[in-house]
Amino acid sequence: MTDRTMTVPALTALVTEILERGGLSPLHAGALARVIAAGERDACKSHGVYRIEGCLRTLKAGKVVADAVPELHADDGAVVRVSAKGGFSNAAFELGVPALADRAASLGMAALVINDCTHFAALWPEVEMLTDRGLVAMAMCPSYASVAPAGGTSALLGTNPFAFGWPRPGGDPYVFDFATSVVARGEIELHRRAGKTLPDGWAIDAQGNPTNDPEAALAGAMLPFGGHKGSAIATMIELLAGVMIGDLTSPEALEALGTTALAPAHGELILAFDPARFAAGRPGDPMARAEALFEVILGQGARLPSQRRFAARAKALSDGITLNADEMAILDRLREGGLDAVS
Amino acid sequence: MTDRTMTVPALTALVTEILERGGLSPLHAGALARVIAAGERDACKSHGVYRIEGCLRTLKAGKVVADAVPELHADDGAVVRVSAKGGFSNAAFELGVPALADRAASLGMAALVINDCTHFAALWPEVEMLTDRGLVAMAMCPSYASVAPAGGTSALLGTNPFAFGWPRPGGDPYVFDFATSVVARGEIELHRRAGKTLPDGWAIDAQGNPTNDPEAALAGAMLPFGGHKGSAIATMIELLAGVMIGDLTSPEALEALGTTALAPAHGELILAFDPARFAAGRPGDPMARAEALFEVILGQGARLPSQRRFAARAKALSDGITLNADEMAILDRLREGGLDAVS
Repeated sequence: MTDRTMTVPALTALVTEILERGGLSPLHAGALARVIAAGERDACKSHGVYRIEGCLRTLKAGKVVADAVPELHADDGAVVRVSAKGGFSNAAFELGVPALADRAASLGMAALVINDCTHFAALWPEVEMLTDRGLVAMAMCPSYASVAPAGGTSALLGTNPFAFGWPRPGGDPYVFDFATSVVARGEIELHRRAGKTLPDGWAIDAQGNPTNDPEAALAGAMLPFGGHKGSAIATMIELLAGVMIGDLTSPEALEALGTTALAPAHGELILAFDPARFAAGRPGDPMARAEALFEVILGQGARLPSQRRFAARAKALSDGITLNADEMAILDRLREGGLDAVS
Repeated sequence: MTDRTMTVPALTALVTEILERGGLSPLHAGALARVIAAGERDACKSHGVYRIEGCLRTLKAGKVVADAVPELHADDGAVVRVSAKGGFSNAAFELGVPALADRAASLGMAALVINDCTHFAALWPEVEMLTDRGLVAMAMCPSYASVAPAGGTSALLGTNPFAFGWPRPGGDPYVFDFATSVVARGEIELHRRAGKTLPDGWAIDAQGNPTNDPEAALAGAMLPFGGHKGSAIATMIELLAGVMIGDLTSPEALEALGTTALAPAHGELILAFDPARFAAGRPGDPMARAEALFEVILGQGARLPSQRRFAARAKALSDGITLNADEMAILDRLREGGLDAVS
């Protein structure tokens, strides 16, 4: 088998077919396929084709509801809630977006709470769905206990991603989306496979001592980015997007799941701001002023976050997405074998 | 002259007297004195008595309106706005709190925007005024350009503090409040005075190269905490609490002021969440669940942020605040000489 190049819609259709063949309802298969194809489109391999088997494995283990129908609860307030009913988060998010945008337009700011979801995706596709509507967005969620608090000795916090988006009319938005651990867990696994030692400050071993050994790190805990400051932000995410919204924290998610090999179940918190409302009556156009700030950053030779991702996107939209033989083999195996082919 | 010990109210009254003698209206003198006394109470010396002369220097330079009367603008939405009318931020914040709390109670979440203020205080006194009301709070503001973006070559971002608070019934709240630079600018100044070199990763020189020399760092720029992640958060604060609210960014604040020796003028953004509303209909009591999380953190031997500050507070409330001879000399000089005594 050799490399294959296909368009984004073609890959989305293929992944949808595989996920439906695995047993996901069309609602979920479509929502998942869109973010998985977006991951490949943006050369964000860790959230691309590689994720399909993990989603199906979680389904096979009975840890996600294949045909869950998410339920929207919105009142006159600023909090829109979607219960994912035990399904994947993506369709729940898509259901909540119009209500969130409506509330943000009417009140200036609103929150979308997603409860009882299984989560495997990056946050940037969600943030970008809001910047596409001209909204400023912030998103966060717990994951499962794998990070020690700064000064602590064992895994408690999740890698707890924190994402933010600012719309840029006529161009790609300003978007960041990062784990609040020093690195993603996959980075430590890559070091283990390559037989490389870890840089200082990435991890502690099972006794709570600093380690440079990937094996010891995987048996121990990762560390938060930025020392006590990153640790405080990761804790804030447990509080806001776990405790406050009445959903699982990272240690609770791990306890409920019993393994880090499946996608964790918990909730998610998304905030949306209407910049026109916040800037009303004040001097200057916020969109133009933000551009001036970005220009200075770029003029210093610094990058904007997601710049590489957007460059890959532009290339994929014009030239298609090229999957290598291994990736095509995964797709073929899963398309033919369904859940039986999931290892 | 020797050390002197006084109660928090006595120090507040003394600082109020000094600020009124310097020309501040009673509204501002009281609001500033409360946060300055709170700084001393919490052994947070960088925001204590040491700040008085800086406030008066900013007043003497004509960069803050001594008798500004802040104006509240609130509608049925989630955005409460207070124009500080060129005065210090503290009285503006105090004016906005009841409306912010009212909107958060009614909608579940609300924002307080402060515009046209001069800012010199920490954010934790504000965050704690909201946790005192049972609200979860997030606060942020620009400062003046002194931090280079990650990968950049010169000062653009401010030290942009980011603060968060979670109420703990019957105890001190969970509160963090930190600069998004690696360290506060004062730390670099302390290294300079002590003739010590800086650790790696703190700063760059005027040519944009990494430096360990405090003099070169002060002529160059500080670096954000946590590399590109902290840099992204500092940029988010410029966007949310500068551009979006129609107020000055850090480079604009420095340009308007022309010096880093005075308190900068800009705006501020505070978000308040009603945890009862977010948790409504969900299992578990968020206050009790948060306590369980804090217990595990403490059980690992890790600290909660602000723990040292709260310990100092408890001691000050029982034993009083002890000021040393130098601090008493500052207070006496400013009380006797007013603005003429300000260097």
